[in-house]
Amino acid sequence: MSDKGRLLSGFQDFLPSAMLTRNRVIETVKSVYSRFGFLPQETPTLEYASLLLGKYGDNQKLVYEFKDRGGRELAMRYDLTVPLGRIIEMYGNSLIFPYRRFQIGMVWRADKPGKGRYREFMQMDADIVGDDSLLSDLEILQMNLEIMNALKVRATIRINSRNILEALLEAGKLEKSDGLKMLRVIDKFDKIGSSGVYSELSDLGFSEDVLALVQSYLAIEGDNAKVLNSLKELLGDSPSFNAGYLRLSSIVDTLSGLADADPNRIKVDPSIARGLDYYTGLVFETVFLDDPAFGSICSGGRYDQMAKRSNGEALPTIGMSIGLDRLFAAMSVAGLVSPVETTTKVFIVNFSDQYLLRYISLAKTLRDAGVSVEISSKATKIGKQLGLANSKGIPFVVLLGENEIDSGKVIIRDMKTGLQNEISAEGLIPFLKAKD
Amino acid sequence: MSDKGRLLSGFQDFLPSAMLTRNRVIETVKSVYSRFGFLPQETPTLEYASLLLGKYGDNQKLVYEFKDRGGRELAMRYDLTVPLGRIIEMYGNSLIFPYRRFQIGMVWRADKPGKGRYREFMQMDADIVGDDSLLSDLEILQMNLEIMNALKVRATIRINSRNILEALLEAGKLEKSDGLKMLRVIDKFDKIGSSGVYSELSDLGFSEDVLALVQSYLAIEGDNAKVLNSLKELLGDSPSFNAGYLRLSSIVDTLSGLADADPNRIKVDPSIARGLDYYTGLVFETVFLDDPAFGSICSGGRYDQMAKRSNGEALPTIGMSIGLDRLFAAMSVAGLVSPVETTTKVFIVNFSDQYLLRYISLAKTLRDAGVSVEISSKATKIGKQLGLANSKGIPFVVLLGENEIDSGKVIIRDMKTGLQNEISAEGLIPFLKAKD
Repeated sequence: MSDKGRLLSGFQDFLPSAMLTRNRVIETVKSVYSRFGFLPQETPTLEYASLLLGKYGDNQKLVYEFKDRGGRELAMRYDLTVPLGRIIEMYGNSLIFPYRRFQIGMVWRADKPGKGRYREFMQMDADIVGDDSLLSDLEILQMNLEIMNALKVRATIRINSRNILEALLEAGKLEKSDGLKMLRVIDKFDKIGSSGVYSELSDLGFSEDVLALVQSYLAIEGDNAKVLNSLKELLGDSPSFNAGYLRLSSIVDTLSGLADADPNRIKVDPSIARGLDYYTGLVFETVFLDDPAFGSICSGGRYDQMAKRSNGEALPTIGMSIGLDRLFAAMSVAGLVSPVETTTKVFIVNFSDQYLLRYISLAKTLRDAGVSVEISSKATKIGKQLGLANSKGIPFVVLLGENEIDSGKVIIRDMKTGLQNEISAEGLIPFLKAKD
Repeated sequence: MSDKGRLLSGFQDFLPSAMLTRNRVIETVKSVYSRFGFLPQETPTLEYASLLLGKYGDNQKLVYEFKDRGGRELAMRYDLTVPLGRIIEMYGNSLIFPYRRFQIGMVWRADKPGKGRYREFMQMDADIVGDDSLLSDLEILQMNLEIMNALKVRATIRINSRNILEALLEAGKLEKSDGLKMLRVIDKFDKIGSSGVYSELSDLGFSEDVLALVQSYLAIEGDNAKVLNSLKELLGDSPSFNAGYLRLSSIVDTLSGLADADPNRIKVDPSIARGLDYYTGLVFETVFLDDPAFGSICSGGRYDQMAKRSNGEALPTIGMSIGLDRLFAAMSVAGLVSPVETTTKVFIVNFSDQYLLRYISLAKTLRDAGVSVEISSKATKIGKQLGLANSKGIPFVVLLGENEIDSGKVIIRDMKTGLQNEISAEGLIPFLKAKD
């Protein structure tokens, strides 16, 4: 096949059934964001490449960059966080803080395509800018829980704090750059395990003392109270530790105080570090319990130094990001996605083009009442038209031939049961609404 | 300001209020498409550049093209029609025809930005593939009318047929390439008038006879019946003419037979030609009556030779495209856009962080009932918190202080009237629903 008819590797076409099914998930997320008082925002696909420069560490090479005909260096959106930073810088003086915005949109990464991993994929982010309160941490986590509930996804949010990780680095007497290196290795704990972390850190030249400290740190487990206590025993009483400990304890206490709280949904986990440099407080990842191998389906954290007004004033921010394509892949594997074939409710059979005006008028009445209708475009044999309606998955067929037109009635056929009813044209809408 | 904090020229940021207002228009269009039995489809932002090659005539240079790190020649989506062609070529054997799909998405053109003209803008397309019936022409036009009605936009759809234009070219004894040149000049009639068309055609070397013919053709006016008759007198009785005449007459007759038909909404207009080469039948443009200078806000036509299965079989298609940004600009000028500030209904005042759990629980109850809620993150002075709710445009504020907690009641304040009611927590949801 020529390039003409080819889809780029790592990119996706969404035909109607895929699209309708996917839209249900998107609408659910949107609806939860909106009920939590978040408002939509959108930024362009293209930005000046300089905006994205130096923001993604080793992943910088995954940014799609190019020069336009005017010689401008452009880059395609790599995430929704850096554009949020630009929004705050540009419009910070007219926005009202705390600024609760969500953004749902595609991002592009020139990555190797794989299971649930695409070069174009959808992120659904929500952030609260200009607020360092405990409440905002709680709301982001609770919103995460509500979304998983609404989607019937069994998941656990694993939380930690960069302050606690900082206390670990302090206890290990590490320089900042060494510290970041170590966090990136700890972040791989899930994939490579304790021994993997140990050997990578050893290869990087960390001392025996540090290795022993990390080993003790990663060995901490138990319920939330026990983990928090063990962390306190190990990392003692520094200002960093206390800040992290206090915030995590408050989060755990408040969330477990909610009426329908499930203590297994939020888990303090020392191994959560998050790769990006900009986090400053709470960090979290959400594990899909039915298949943890999918990695995190919703992650985020607090970054109090990245979003800045044009005068340089930093605005404390907490945010979360859902990777729709990964979430959707995970849900599909777990059988949580019920396919939607069509939204069209009624198919009107065409007995003859001489009745076209009748069909169009009837369709208009139904459509005005919010019913989705397709009219059969050709007066082929009735059986063939019923077959077409059936293959399209349209649940009801209306038959309006000469007899019915004379009698002022229509026949409605339920395609699932094959049952037909003769009813008045006025009775059609109540009949269909009752079947909703 | 450095590039860091700059938006690219011709691109747009949508802050929440702009986004919410714009989303209303998008939702209206989506809802009409859906009620007409169209289903959503999506294609990637990036395609192989070869797919777009030679598709846009003189505008080819407006395509954003670049090479990725793997050396692939890529192009950004320029419209939604060419990707539809690829969909039909790739999936034609599994799709069910007539295939009624809509696609709403951004397209990119390296054009000079201007009034309502952007480099990244949204198109909302609906097409019926695999159907050459009169009905499908009618449905597309009627859908266009319904959308304009739903948006309260006063508009007229100007229709013509490529078959009639073909008869004009035949009458002028023109070669195909000269014919296309002529159509592109006729297409400018609105901007440059009869004399402009005359002089451009003269400059291009068309004969006096042809000029006289075009002048007579463009001078045709009157109601639809009169225009159709005059066309018949001028262009006689060729197969092309008859095909176009029959289809346009049937369209006009059927649409005027509808109960609430307004004869001024559909106008046969010989000057409508459409610049693109691929049209084969009905062509149309929609003029915004309050400010025709905006150009066409919805246009399209029938193209029976472009969408092809992989075996080369052409599938007759009719489609329409709405340029959201232009439509939105036109609606704004006409005062048809009522700004939406927020979707958040309730702001819960924070009297003290010791009541956080109460606030979160109350918010949860409201959110579970579908009410959008923001909790105030800081227990600052009440007046300050009310001011914040007010500046965010949130219509209701809930006050739940020590007294209310003791009494099991809450105070709800209508921010518009300033009136406060003390009601039970259970009464809150019915109270708010009644205010919807």
